[in-house]
Amino acid sequence: MSFDDIIDRRDTHCAKWDMMEKLYGVSADDGLAMWVADMDFQPPKCVIDALQARVDHGMFGYFGDDSDYRAAIQWWMKERHNWDIQPEWIFSTHGLVNGAAMCIDAYTKQGDGVVMFTPIYHAFARVIEAADRRIVECQMALTDGRYTLDFDAWDAQMDGSETLLLLCSPHNPGGRVWTQAELEGVAAFAKRHDLIIVSDEIHHDLVMPGHTHIPMAQIDGIADRLVMMSATTKTFSIAGAHVGNVIIQDEALRAKFAKRMGALGLSPNAFGLFMATAAYSPEGAAWVDALMEYLAGNARIFDEGVNAIPGLKSMPLQATYLSWVDFSGTGMSREEVTRRIEKDAQIAANYGPTFGAGGETFMRFNIATQRSRVQEAVARLTKAFGDLQ
Amino acid sequence: MSFDDIIDRRDTHCAKWDMMEKLYGVSADDGLAMWVADMDFQPPKCVIDALQARVDHGMFGYFGDDSDYRAAIQWWMKERHNWDIQPEWIFSTHGLVNGAAMCIDAYTKQGDGVVMFTPIYHAFARVIEAADRRIVECQMALTDGRYTLDFDAWDAQMDGSETLLLLCSPHNPGGRVWTQAELEGVAAFAKRHDLIIVSDEIHHDLVMPGHTHIPMAQIDGIADRLVMMSATTKTFSIAGAHVGNVIIQDEALRAKFAKRMGALGLSPNAFGLFMATAAYSPEGAAWVDALMEYLAGNARIFDEGVNAIPGLKSMPLQATYLSWVDFSGTGMSREEVTRRIEKDAQIAANYGPTFGAGGETFMRFNIATQRSRVQEAVARLTKAFGDLQ
Repeated sequence: MSFDDIIDRRDTHCAKWDMMEKLYGVSADDGLAMWVADMDFQPPKCVIDALQARVDHGMFGYFGDDSDYRAAIQWWMKERHNWDIQPEWIFSTHGLVNGAAMCIDAYTKQGDGVVMFTPIYHAFARVIEAADRRIVECQMALTDGRYTLDFDAWDAQMDGSETLLLLCSPHNPGGRVWTQAELEGVAAFAKRHDLIIVSDEIHHDLVMPGHTHIPMAQIDGIADRLVMMSATTKTFSIAGAHVGNVIIQDEALRAKFAKRMGALGLSPNAFGLFMATAAYSPEGAAWVDALMEYLAGNARIFDEGVNAIPGLKSMPLQATYLSWVDFSGTGMSREEVTRRIEKDAQIAANYGPTFGAGGETFMRFNIATQRSRVQEAVARLTKAFGDLQ
Repeated sequence: MSFDDIIDRRDTHCAKWDMMEKLYGVSADDGLAMWVADMDFQPPKCVIDALQARVDHGMFGYFGDDSDYRAAIQWWMKERHNWDIQPEWIFSTHGLVNGAAMCIDAYTKQGDGVVMFTPIYHAFARVIEAADRRIVECQMALTDGRYTLDFDAWDAQMDGSETLLLLCSPHNPGGRVWTQAELEGVAAFAKRHDLIIVSDEIHHDLVMPGHTHIPMAQIDGIADRLVMMSATTKTFSIAGAHVGNVIIQDEALRAKFAKRMGALGLSPNAFGLFMATAAYSPEGAAWVDALMEYLAGNARIFDEGVNAIPGLKSMPLQATYLSWVDFSGTGMSREEVTRRIEKDAQIAANYGPTFGAGGETFMRFNIATQRSRVQEAVARLTKAFGDLQ
């Protein structure tokens, strides 16, 4: 299939298309689903073939021997990210919301502060609050229209009760690929305040051509405080498989994590393991390269269109397929912005304020869809905010 | 397919067949896998069809709208167990080891005693210990060759530090279907010692013809202390799907459970939901009826064969497909029994002592396999212990 081929996801238990009428009042028949962070693309053929082989076998019992699954992850990290890992460093969680939650559970106690650079992926805040930990929002600075890290301000914010930093790298929703210097700054900040670093690198494969993601594990001197998270689910359009990698080099951190995995009786589902093993392969890699070319094209079209509308400003994407658009220049209330997007343009997008401090005037648009839909979205937004021309 | 059709599970990441050489020294080529509690049968066609439909669609994103999944569970509990439940009582965990672990996490604190009637399914003990709770083993009595509940002895055992009772109903490995009077005794025991009851009813569908499982929820006066667990995975031979039902009527217990599910970022994988929805259906029900006839036939053959061997005694199965065989009559050491089973008979079975107090002289044999294999197992055991004739 081509990325251009429209796939009808209505009435398929697809959260992105089937829940938007209920949540946003945007009809799946006329509307555009640009909220939930999954892609409207089929995974690569090797992944579907792996699943078809299971259906053909017709047996779905307990999964045994995950050595080739671990080897596939190991191969991918070396091949795609120049990162050497050992199979025994890998834990399989039920996606990375669960992965982040397990880190918070294993490494912090009630009342501890969990630091996040905001705006940031909103699901983390829910987990932190449900676990009776405190969210410590460190708001990023804006430099030339891009998010940057404001360590001086954040140093002053820390009060010693913080124990864990949840880093998003590449950053969602800002679309930043952090530089070596920035990541070294993060490491120094974490050391100064004695924070465990949980580096959510779920978007590490979804980097725009011309940019290079640096694994946090490549930064010196933090192996004893670092947990890295990634997943095939985001990269390969298989979010429903609910399988994530939590990779921990340090033995003491690993023992703590393993103990909580055992105490919570967590082990991965077989489908996720079969699909992930197939995805982390040369065929999977070629598919990701093609995907990123396509997404870069979508980003260009979306950015040009949106930035041509007076008062709207989209942040340039170095990674992710999530466009972060500032509506503050319109001078409109949030209600009016939302009304125009949902009622006039019939688009469901994520609300900026749910991403924490700094997101107040933003909306997040998922552009991992067919190009014709991206073009349609631009046309609708242009019309909906046409009186600003 | 017929239940008689042999399916080759070797080299398919099947824990039961592919791990037994490593763990028991029993070759998958010549040996019989009678340990891991999954069945060597394909699930009903409706379940495979549901999965095939997902593969044909080719999209595997975030799952949305689980109302028909919940409705299917509700229908099944009413239709098959005469139990009225509400959709909002249902939580989806990653199987029931995770389900039990979540209950222990939500309802007990470190150092608390967790009561189990032993011998009992061994995975629970691992979870309890990993969570730094104490295992309180209440050993069952033997009456006419069957396990019975010994409340007088257990009352004397309690010291007030116990907060949760993990009940297995029907019982694994004893194969007991508890009577109304016995379950009322459990309820009274739990009330006397102020215990939350977590009723693991994963085998509730796997009841031999002529026996009827009584849901713990039918027992009066314990709704405020009861959590029920069940799953399609055991009943329908889809253990790899890793999805379980935790059903809680009481609002306060539900709120505590929900909070921990949120704090741990747990939500179910899409495959498990699609397959479970398809399984809890009239077609699924008819398949289970046929399955139980077949398993009853296997149990008859296995029991007759085993009980004809002097010194061996299998417990009569009222439910489950797990035959619990006492080797104490042989007068042999465990090492000798194990050597004969594994080396001579080339059978992998579970070790009784791992099931806790009372399991010392037993082995557990999984008979949910093709009848020819059950017959072969009987022939091999007869030969391996032939010098006792």
